Amino acid sequence: MKEQTIKRILQFTIDRDWDQFHSPANLAKSISIEANELLECFQWSDDNYDVEHVKEELADVIVYCVDMLDKLNLDVDEIVNAKMDKNEAKYPVEKAKGSAAKYTEL
Amino acid sequence: MKEQTIKRILQFTIDRDWDQFHSPANLAKSISIEANELLECFQWSDDNYDVEHVKEELADVIVYCVDMLDKLNLDVDEIVNAKMDKNEAKYPVEKAKGSAAKYTEL
Amino acid sequence: MKEQTIKRILQFTIDRDWDQFHSPANLAKSISIEANELLECFQWSDDNYDVEHVKEELADVIVYCVDMLDKLNLDVDEIVNAKMDKNEAKYPVEKAKGSAAKYTEL
Amino acid sequence: MKEQTIKRILQFTIDRDWDQFHSPANLAKSISIEANELLECFQWSDDNYDVEHVKEELADVIVYCVDMLDKLNLDVDEIVNAKMDKNEAKYPVEKAKGSAAKYTEL
Repeated sequence: MKEQTIKRILQFTIDRDWDQFHSPANLAKSISIEANELLECFQWSDDNYDVEHVKEELADVIVYCVDMLDKLNLDVDEIVNAKMDKNEAKYPVEKAKGSAAKYTEL
Repeated sequence: MKEQTIKRILQFTIDRDWDQFHSPANLAKSISIEANELLECFQWSDDNYDVEHVKEELADVIVYCVDMLDKLNLDVDEIVNAKMDKNEAKYPVEKAKGSAAKYTEL
Repeated sequence: MKEQTIKRILQFTIDRDWDQFHSPANLAKSISIEANELLECFQWSDDNYDVEHVKEELADVIVYCVDMLDKLNLDVDEIVNAKMDKNEAKYPVEKAKGSAAKYTEL
Repeated sequence: MKEQTIKRILQFTIDRDWDQFHSPANLAKSISIEANELLECFQWSDDNYDVEHVKEELADVIVYCVDMLDKLNLDVDEIVNAKMDKNEAKYPVEKAKGSAAKYTEL
């Protein structure tokens, strides 16, 4: 994401004085709520979805993720790479290839 | 996020031949599931959370968002800016400032 | 559900002195968290699920619903019938039959 | 819940020929979606919620739970009691009393 887009997201909150509502817990709730508006696009069919609606709801999830990264002063590349280190260790290619099994079952 | 981090996320899926499981509907489910693992960090307390755990679960949400953007060939800046256009129209500063009310109640 | 089962659920909380954690907001989070553990049974496949696991996660959702009904002193038949009144009005049989469309689109 | 209320819920689906949409996976999605509409009642405040709205959203969660029990031919008392057996074993009173810690940390 461009720095400019991130700034726009954060400025939106500042302009409305909404930082007071953006506790980490409230942002976690918000990410789940938006994730479920995204899920609603697929509620009754996996294949027959409105991509315009999907784009809006996915954007909402991402916006709150940016808010949470900012709130907790986290670097997105740092936390994602740290998690990918773990994921790669939990799901070694030779065991996980082509399997949807959870790592505890591999 | 750096291009390199995005590539790492996508390569992880390619290496394991997991694209077959990554339908948009399954990715939407996954985003919600990970969002709720994040929410679990705040299940019984808003203030007493383990930031290391939060980082991991937030990273998982972001990873699946990247997968979904890729799956649907979406440009993150484009969809986020399009949604911010809407949000700014729904929540004009003069009405929304300092209020947690939903736009339908403003 | 039998009165005896409901009592067992509520006694479980009393015995552990957990009522202090069971604010309506925390119970709402808990219902969502358990609902997503249920959803995880279907994360990568709609058809290939472990029914024993489904039973456990569905039970967890129901347990927290019982806790919330109790916390807010709600009568389950009353709130469900009130909502069914609304659902029947929103989705008249002649319009909704065989359609998965949302009521706003009927 | 009264037998009559359960019948009303199931008849609602039959009348609209919606059983075709009620796969276990779709019902799991629906439970999560409704759980998050419930969570939205507490999005920005734990204490300042609209109890009428809470009643409606909690009812929706319960309605889909009833649908899922029916779909999978499950007995609610059986699955809840089986899960309570496990919960009581995982959270022995002497260890869990007054603590919000997860059983893995007790």
